[in-house]
Amino acid sequence: MIKDEKKILFLNSAFTLENPFISTEDALEWLKKENKGIYVKIDEIKFSEMPDWYFDEGGNLRHNSGKFFSIEGINVRTNWGKVPEWSQPIINQPEVGYLGIITKKFNGILYFLMQAKIEPGNINYVQLSPTIQATRSNYSQVHKGKRPLYLEYFNGDKKSRVMLDQLQSEQGARFLKKRNRNVIIEVEDEIEVHENFRWLTLGQIKKMMMNDNVVNMDTRTVISGIPFDVENLNGKFDHSNLSKDIINSYIDTENCLNETDEIISWITRLKSKYDLDVKQIPLNKVARWTKDEYSIYHDDRKYFSVIAVNVHIDNREVKSWSQPLIKSAQEGIIAFLIKKINGIYHFLVQAKLEAGNFDIIELAPTLQCLTGNYRKGLSEYEPEFLDYVLNVKPEQILYSAFQSEEGGRFYREQNSNLIIEVDENFPVEVPENFIWMTLNQIQTFLKFNNYLNIEARSLISSVRFI
Amino acid sequence: MIKDEKKILFLNSAFTLENPFISTEDALEWLKKENKGIYVKIDEIKFSEMPDWYFDEGGNLRHNSGKFFSIEGINVRTNWGKVPEWSQPIINQPEVGYLGIITKKFNGILYFLMQAKIEPGNINYVQLSPTIQATRSNYSQVHKGKRPLYLEYFNGDKKSRVMLDQLQSEQGARFLKKRNRNVIIEVEDEIEVHENFRWLTLGQIKKMMMNDNVVNMDTRTVISGIPFDVENLNGKFDHSNLSKDIINSYIDTENCLNETDEIISWITRLKSKYDLDVKQIPLNKVARWTKDEYSIYHDDRKYFSVIAVNVHIDNREVKSWSQPLIKSAQEGIIAFLIKKINGIYHFLVQAKLEAGNFDIIELAPTLQCLTGNYRKGLSEYEPEFLDYVLNVKPEQILYSAFQSEEGGRFYREQNSNLIIEVDENFPVEVPENFIWMTLNQIQTFLKFNNYLNIEARSLISSVRFI
Repeated sequence: MIKDEKKILFLNSAFTLENPFISTEDALEWLKKENKGIYVKIDEIKFSEMPDWYFDEGGNLRHNSGKFFSIEGINVRTNWGKVPEWSQPIINQPEVGYLGIITKKFNGILYFLMQAKIEPGNINYVQLSPTIQATRSNYSQVHKGKRPLYLEYFNGDKKSRVMLDQLQSEQGARFLKKRNRNVIIEVEDEIEVHENFRWLTLGQIKKMMMNDNVVNMDTRTVISGIPFDVENLNGKFDHSNLSKDIINSYIDTENCLNETDEIISWITRLKSKYDLDVKQIPLNKVARWTKDEYSIYHDDRKYFSVIAVNVHIDNREVKSWSQPLIKSAQEGIIAFLIKKINGIYHFLVQAKLEAGNFDIIELAPTLQCLTGNYRKGLSEYEPEFLDYVLNVKPEQILYSAFQSEEGGRFYREQNSNLIIEVDENFPVEVPENFIWMTLNQIQTFLKFNNYLNIEARSLISSVRFI
Repeated sequence: MIKDEKKILFLNSAFTLENPFISTEDALEWLKKENKGIYVKIDEIKFSEMPDWYFDEGGNLRHNSGKFFSIEGINVRTNWGKVPEWSQPIINQPEVGYLGIITKKFNGILYFLMQAKIEPGNINYVQLSPTIQATRSNYSQVHKGKRPLYLEYFNGDKKSRVMLDQLQSEQGARFLKKRNRNVIIEVEDEIEVHENFRWLTLGQIKKMMMNDNVVNMDTRTVISGIPFDVENLNGKFDHSNLSKDIINSYIDTENCLNETDEIISWITRLKSKYDLDVKQIPLNKVARWTKDEYSIYHDDRKYFSVIAVNVHIDNREVKSWSQPLIKSAQEGIIAFLIKKINGIYHFLVQAKLEAGNFDIIELAPTLQCLTGNYRKGLSEYEPEFLDYVLNVKPEQILYSAFQSEEGGRFYREQNSNLIIEVDENFPVEVPENFIWMTLNQIQTFLKFNNYLNIEARSLISSVRFI
């Protein structure tokens, strides 16, 4: 075994934009065409107009089959923040989901088999998705449902090699302890490329993330976990100064402000200090939320609402179904502030408690909020660094794009994704629930389960070398 | 900051047996004397004879104050193993406990301030304990209870430096998702050494673990998390061949059988495959367990029982109280099989599901079981490698001692702790829920929360360099 051979393969793919199968421009064009060639109609309907969904005696919204997901209630008590107790609706989907990408070497470079996939909640319907998105039921074919394409490479029926396999969290404010399995495999055999699928390098996928709402959340979370053996670069590639700084933040382990063990101490301290006591309650016992025929909403119209939609898709075949979706009250911002400390880029990481978290707190971006809540002064308190982010100079912005939440659950929800380099005067000293971490350290924590939250991972996935 | 300065301090202390304050022999003698000088009487009594404890309407055993712990019921469903559903009593103690050790440099060597502490459940009453064992309530002095000695160094009132701060799990078969904060701090100021406390090096503590039931579980779990910067050894110390092999297993990152990312993939696969659905139920709804006046026991007298005891301690002062304890049905074995692979010691680690686990499975020793259950053929199935461990040749045993479970909860419970080097013919290929790991890798997983279970950590704490 060549040590770190997988990481070198990932690194080389991240540095490759030349692709004989399809150029990055053509890949963007392909997704645009897919979007144009499809007729999608999403209508907000009454809950009672969804034939396969019903409210149980506790007011929880469930599917007739008992499968998929349900909308239930939780009561939350915590000594975190300014609100000691609240109740809210939450998505309960206990099954681990599978997000899998097939890769294959062509001329020594790793290509990712990516899918143009429709999700009803997406703003633009079709986005770049992993090779496979499946529930455990259809992954394991327990219920003999429609067999997902390429399943045979993931379940052991056909030969493949595991390149990455991580259990990662979903949105803690919306899902109750939900996790997905993020998998990348490598296939050596010839493999059929089905309609709607293309081979792309990791460099191309990251490049495409510079565009709004092109690369879906499932892709972003899977590629965020990819480890890079950056030490093997050895000046192999030309790169800009920014790129050199990014590389240094991945390589350097000598100049980090806090050692990894100190970051673990900091997390331990916060997890020991803060309680998160979550009890499942019937949805109709959730205080300050109202259900009418069309939606379930907070009395101040904050946070989000649960709506019912009818989906009609007219493509090669016609499909129609109805389902609940989560509709955010406003657009949000997620932003990492980064700063050169000891000559190395450090990311300002926030420890954030969210009701659905698996283990009290997760590591979040510097800023993660619904902007509207705060702009209107409706909020319980102002998030740290919100003003800084809203008033940043254009030249400080290293990355900026709107990115969508998962379109199978969320209705046209997009967040502004930002990476911002702070000015020289920005203090190294930060509040108790913040800490500076290098990319090397973020990479280490990310690969252990349930440390980086999905918003942080989304931003990390956008970090590119070229 | 000198990189890894803390790890070097720990390493040097682990290599030091010379102690001007007290020799190892005298430290053992001191504990013996403490044991002799104390009169302890433990009587099994009726539940109704405990004035401060009562059974609530669901049959759960609770303290009048609502504090401490309670004995409740759980119903467990899982696709792991051969028993798809069972119910059992479990200890519920939601508060994070604090286990803290003060260290201080004398002549450049780190000394640990250890306590001779009585616990009612201990076979021999007095064992070597951390500087402080506290609940969050008396740690934070919320209820203004008796202030633990040395608290001021842990809560920030007096100056100290954090050396280690980890959140670690307790016994998953007995506790519901219980975790303790394991803390080591360093103090520079002069510090009073109270009666019952002594300064010991890490080398001495590990040496004392060669004796049965001398070093208590709380000490073992705290020191198991200590990281060593073994690369800085540079032939600084003389050591035996065994010691060299141990050091290599800490240093070497090139010859491990599985890379760390592959171990993460293996854990992800198992966590995605196996369900652990635990529901809290009233204790009187737990099937196949019976409550009489004196105990709550399994109908086959397997596993453990809950008993009530009156404790009478006559020392410098006389103390008396009553409380429930857990009484194990038999002694147990915990054992690591280790094998040189690629010239490096690898430990055979088991992924084990236990009902109270925080996250489905934790990494356990190769063998972890109650021996009696299996010897009598009462068990649902035979654990892997039990026969091998029971029939091992004496020269294969690298470590063997009886070690106690926490005497505040468990009644005279001791387990045989074994580290065994397998013979050359022992296969490298192992069952699905086992994997070979070097000490370097175990050290990495151990410092992230909830990977290594308490039994594995107990064994790891016994690994010594001299």
